[in-house]
Parts: sequence; C-alpha cells; structure tokens
Amino acid sequence: MKTKTICLLTLMVGSVGVFAQTNSTSSTAEPLNDWQPATSNQQGKQYPQVNSEGRVRARVIASQAQSVQLDLGGVKYPLIKGDDGVWTGISKPQDEGFHYYQLVIDGAQVPDPNSLYFYGAGRWGSGIEIPAKDEDFYALKNVPHGQLREVLYTATTSNSVRHCFVYTPPDYDKDPNQRYPVLYLQHGMGENETGWGNQGHANLIMDNLLAEGKAKPFIIVMENGGGIGGPRRDGPPTNAAPAGAGSATNGAARGPGGFGGRGFDFSAFEHVVIDDLVPYIDANYRTIPDQPHRAMAGLSMGGMQTHVIALAHLDTFSHIGIFSGGSVTTNEIPDLGAFKQKVKLVFVSYGSREIDPANRRSGGAPRGFGGDPKANTEALEAAGINCHFYVSPMTAHEWQSWRRSLHEFAPLLFQD
Amino acid sequence: MKTKTICLLTLMVGSVGVFAQTNSTSSTAEPLNDWQPATSNQQGKQYPQVNSEGRVRARVIASQAQSVQLDLGGVKYPLIKGDDGVWTGISKPQDEGFHYYQLVIDGAQVPDPNSLYFYGAGRWGSGIEIPAKDEDFYALKNVPHGQLREVLYTATTSNSVRHCFVYTPPDYDKDPNQRYPVLYLQHGMGENETGWGNQGHANLIMDNLLAEGKAKPFIIVMENGGGIGGPRRDGPPTNAAPAGAGSATNGAARGPGGFGGRGFDFSAFEHVVIDDLVPYIDANYRTIPDQPHRAMAGLSMGGMQTHVIALAHLDTFSHIGIFSGGSVTTNEIPDLGAFKQKVKLVFVSYGSREIDPANRRSGGAPRGFGGDPKANTEALEAAGINCHFYVSPMTAHEWQSWRRSLHEFAPLLFQD
Repeated sequence: MKTKTICLLTLMVGSVGVFAQTNSTSSTAEPLNDWQPATSNQQGKQYPQVNSEGRVRARVIASQAQSVQLDLGGVKYPLIKGDDGVWTGISKPQDEGFHYYQLVIDGAQVPDPNSLYFYGAGRWGSGIEIPAKDEDFYALKNVPHGQLREVLYTATTSNSVRHCFVYTPPDYDKDPNQRYPVLYLQHGMGENETGWGNQGHANLIMDNLLAEGKAKPFIIVMENGGGIGGPRRDGPPTNAAPAGAGSATNGAARGPGGFGGRGFDFSAFEHVVIDDLVPYIDANYRTIPDQPHRAMAGLSMGGMQTHVIALAHLDTFSHIGIFSGGSVTTNEIPDLGAFKQKVKLVFVSYGSREIDPANRRSGGAPRGFGGDPKANTEALEAAGINCHFYVSPMTAHEWQSWRRSLHEFAPLLFQD
Repeated sequence: MKTKTICLLTLMVGSVGVFAQTNSTSSTAEPLNDWQPATSNQQGKQYPQVNSEGRVRARVIASQAQSVQLDLGGVKYPLIKGDDGVWTGISKPQDEGFHYYQLVIDGAQVPDPNSLYFYGAGRWGSGIEIPAKDEDFYALKNVPHGQLREVLYTATTSNSVRHCFVYTPPDYDKDPNQRYPVLYLQHGMGENETGWGNQGHANLIMDNLLAEGKAKPFIIVMENGGGIGGPRRDGPPTNAAPAGAGSATNGAARGPGGFGGRGFDFSAFEHVVIDDLVPYIDANYRTIPDQPHRAMAGLSMGGMQTHVIALAHLDTFSHIGIFSGGSVTTNEIPDLGAFKQKVKLVFVSYGSREIDPANRRSGGAPRGFGGDPKANTEALEAAGINCHFYVSPMTAHEWQSWRRSLHEFAPLLFQD
C-alpha cells in the first residue's frame, strides 16, 4: 500500500487549527496587506479579496442596513459600515481551496453579488477560492483540453429525461476507432452533477495529468445522485414512470454491512446507475464496455454510494474510490478470493483535519463512517487487495481534499 | 419575403402596454390567485411564483430589514413585511418569457436566493420565467437530445485559452462520416457565451425542431463577444500575446456604413471569429468547412457583430441573422450582384414592442439601429436578396423575442 501523509506540515496545521477553533473575530496580528481579488469572483469584480494568510475580505453596498455579516466556515464575521454606505469585513485564515459562503444582510441570507455561484448545501450560492500551494494541478493551462458535455438522456426504465455531465479526454474526437475506460464520479450531499466540474475542476485536473503523461485517458461521467424523486431543475420529466419500476437491481443498494443504511437508501440511484446510466454511456460513447474498464468513485455521500453500489455490482466495476466517505472492511466481503480477482483497486482518502486529532477543528470521533479508514484499508491490503490510502494535508471535509483525491486516484486507474 | 406578424394580438398588446407603462404598483383588479413556483427557481424552492396574468410574487426572509424591493423590468416593487419577518410582494403583469431581476434589501442589490442564476447585465444574477402560450417550442421533451459542450480551446494567433459552448445535434456521435453546417450564434451586451444555452434554450429549441423534422441538423457555436481584453472567468490565459497581434483581418469590423461605429469596435472579436474560432471549429468538429455551410447570427450587440463581421467576410458566411440588432440596407452593399451570389439569407427580427408604436412601453424612436428594419429588409428583397422579416408578438428587447427568432431562423438555414 502506498500511503501518502505529509507529516512535516503538522505543526503548521496545529496553529491554523487554533485560529479556526477561536470563535472571536479578533486576531492578535494585523492581517497582511497583500489582498487580491479571489479567482472565484465574477468577471471584473474586485471583491471579495483574499490575502496570503488565507483571510477573506468581503465588501457589499448596503446603505440602509443595520447589520451585515460574512457567513463562512461556520462563523459569522461582522462587516463594518463606512461613511459611504459600504460594508467591509475580514475573516480568520481559511484552509486552502474552495469554500461555500453567503452574506447575511439584516437577517436575509443571500449570495454575495460579486462571486460566482456554485451548487452546494442544497442551493446555488457563493463560493470562494483560497489560493493553495499546490493549485497548479487544477489550474487552467495552455494544454490540450477535454470537453465537459452537458447531456440530456432518456432513462429508458422510467422513460424520463435525466441530466448528466460527461468529460471526454482531449483526443476523443480525433480518432473514431479509439475506445476509452469510464470513471463514474459522484458529488456529495446537497450538491449535484455540476459539482465536480465547477468546484472540483475535474476536467482541468485530468487535462493537466494527461498533458504530463501521468494518467491514462478515460471518460468521466457525473450524474445527480441526490435529487432522485425530487423535481428536476430542467422541468418535469415527460411521461415519467415511477422510479424503480422494472428494476432488477432495486433494493441491493441498501447495502452490505450497514453503510448504506446510515439513514440513506441508495437503491433508487443504484437503479439509475446500473439500469440506465451505464447502458446509456456504453451505447452512446466509445467506451470499453466491460468490468475491467469501469471505475466508480465519489466524495462523502458519493463515496458511500460508491461503496454500496460498486460492491453490489462487482461484475460492473473494477476500481473503487471513496473520498471522505468511509472505507471497505474485510468483514463485509464474503469471498475475499473472488473480490481480489475482480477488484483491481480500492482507494480511500480523507482530509487530515477529518481524521487526525491534532489537526481537527472540533471534538468528536474522526469521520470514519464505520471504523478507522486507515486501519481498515491496511487490513484489506493485508488480505491481498490492491489498496491505496491518501490523506490531504491541512484540509477538512471540503473540495480541496477531493480535488487532491482525484489527482491521486486518476493515475492509478486502468493500468493493466 | 415571408413576413410574419400576428396582428390579431394588437388589441391585447395595447392593454398590456398600458399596464406596463403605469409606474404605480397598485392595480385596479385583485391579482388572480393561481400562483405557481417559477420554473426558473432552484430545485424545490416555492418562491418566486408567477400567476396566469404574468405577475411575479417574490418572498424573502429578512427579519431585521427596513426595506425590501423586487427590482424587475425597470420597476422597484415594495415588499411588505409579515409578522414572521417574511417579506412578500407582487409585480405588475410581465411579458411572457425570461426576465432578469434582483432584490434590494436595505439598499443592497442582491440575487434572490431562491432563483437560478443567469449571466446578463454584466453579472450573474436572478432570472424569472413567465409562462408563455408558445413555450412548448423550448420545453424539455422526451426527444433525442443534442449536447452542449463546454470547450476550452487555444486561440492560436494569441496563444491564449478561450472558452465557448458548442451544440452538437442528437446524431452527431452516431456516424463518424457525417458532416454538418455550422451556425455561429452570439449573445447581447452584458451577456456571455452561456446566454444562448441557459436563457435562450437554444439546445432545446433545436432538439424540438429536429424531432419534428422542421430543420436540418447543424452545429451551433457560442463564443464570448463581449469580454475581449477583460479577465477570463477561468483565470488568466497563459502566455497570452496582445489581442489582435498578427491579425490579417484586424480593423475591418469597424464596419461599413457606420453600424459598427455606434460606439462599438468589433475588430478584436472579428479577429477571434475569423482567425481563431472558425479554424478551430473546422479542425475539431465534423463541419462542412465552406461558405455555403456557415451562418452567423446574434441578438442585439450580437446582431450588430453579425452584421459587421459577416458582411466583411462574405467568403466565410452565407446566412445572416440579426435579432433586435439592426438591419441591412442596400446602400452598404457595393456590389448587389456579388452579394446576391454569396448571401443565401438575410433574416431580420424584432420584438413587437421594439418597433410598433402601439405596443411600445416608452417614448423615443423605434429600435431600428439605422432606419426602419422592415422597410430596409423589403428594399433588400426588392433588390433580389432572399430575406425574411419576423416580429415577435407582445415582446420587447428580451429573450422571448430571441428564442422565437431562433425558432423562425433555424428552419430557413442550409436548405440548398
């Protein structure tokens, strides 16, 4: 097992953790005055800004307001009104990477009119990008680019129209005879199929890995694993049959062991993946349509879905990635020999703040979703399974952990 | 010339026009109580709502606010605070179709946290969909769907990375030997390359036309004609050379006659279209890469760009569409015989409120951008050019006019 933890950073992590745990907005030191507009701002907007400490400086015009707050990372920072009716305020240092936030204006929770908008926490709202030391791996570069395709397809078992995104690698349209493996990649709870493209930069991560020759080219499919049964953003499906009608697999995703049963029932999404999505993708893209060339991965709830759905369908998937969403235990595998035969990779990852007590922001048990993920993964490897455990340094249950996880996971895929 | 104006609707238009011109928020009649959540809301959000009169009922929680307004269609409607700290308010009837709006909370202009967000008026902000009698032509249906592809490409003349969307028709991936004509389709001022997909539903309009056999399949390319020289949303281009460097065509788009000179200089965008975009699309998509199989069209500023760029490059484009963006006069065509030889269609359209005094909301001259567009188009047709003039009933300078224009324009394209 290749284990990658950057322990040299622990001391720094500790001090930032203290900042994050302090609930006061005052800080002992003056913020560094090297503010830059956030890259997550709308075009031409000078605010919000970030500095090299990872602080956020927000600004909004609200001439008649009594109270304005920046709501970021679980803390509401008060903004101060200037003589010109302009409110400004500064947060404590934030983790590197992407964070959702909002403004609170006299009690109204609203998006910041200056930021781009992202779907998370069950709504389209503001997000801010804190520059990261390793941001180069998801930067937009002048390299060959794949495409993010917005796809409307008919889920044949329900005759309803569904929405997904498909990343095709840079050379996909060059050679009509070339076929590709496929990674099915899922978002977290309160997010949707736009997350991996917008917040995750999955396309740029892959473009950059491919340009450096560090990964094999494959297709990535991003569906909506959270909105099943709810209204579709694009309007009601026409002539929709009840979800699950005619499904041969309905029910299996309640899960082995109990992972699927932690308040979640993934059977409807399992039905979509197995009976609608995989057949659609194999019929409409130049895939290599067999088990050795299919992977599934996801973050948080998407990791739990991957855990449950992939393990129930080892004839469909050979590579499994679980980012901040639990781990696989030997107990839940009835036939380790058969499992080893079929599963080419089990990848498990977390943010360091999620699992390392020294780095954590709050009390309580580490986010293991059923035991210590590192110990579980080591036990699985001891049983002969090809495993990889990764910890993202100085990040929590957030997108920087998952960008890095994809960046670690992708080069391991489809290596046979 | 096929002219399509629905004069039967003039009486109704007149009465709605009176509503729209009244600047008071009181209405003689009680609003009809058949409210429905707008289809432009975020998933699961019950507000804002619309009724069958086209009124909008907005709602926001702002417990400590002193003043909340709905800013829609140039009018600020006051919201009223209930005992529960929830503010609600109702607008006058709006035109059918799509409208940008925002909330004003104690002086802060912010997006409505309940709506989806669209790029217009120079920012990502709220939009609302008023149900239209003809909305079926842009509805999401269970028909074969094309794809909207988000494309990052290198503008070779400047070595910078640019961003566009490409619609490929439903069967594009089926037959690798099939080649397609291309429509280059531009947004308006303050909008960007996302407009025709998000607000315009260009993909759904084409999917539906194709399913009914009413149009020939073609590729649509949507680039950003307004942000040239400004910062890119996706970060700075790498290794970017000055815009216009090495352009053989730079300068021509200042335009014949003076259309291009109305405060606009389209030469940088002309350079992108002619020297970067068209060659990129022809090299990377299965186009029919010749003049008879290329069209250009656009709305408002995009129509002016089409006017200027297409007329300066008649060896590149054969079909021209100008939606609410002026018309072509015989005066600006030096050789009518050559023009007739090369140009297979000049399509000009407007919303009825833009050009018909009986339907207009405010005073001043009709939006002709250089004369009466209908008279100009009739004169062009009299000179032997294939022309089509269309007026969208009961709509103004807004997206419903342009959705309908595309719906009228697309079936006329590439008919030889």
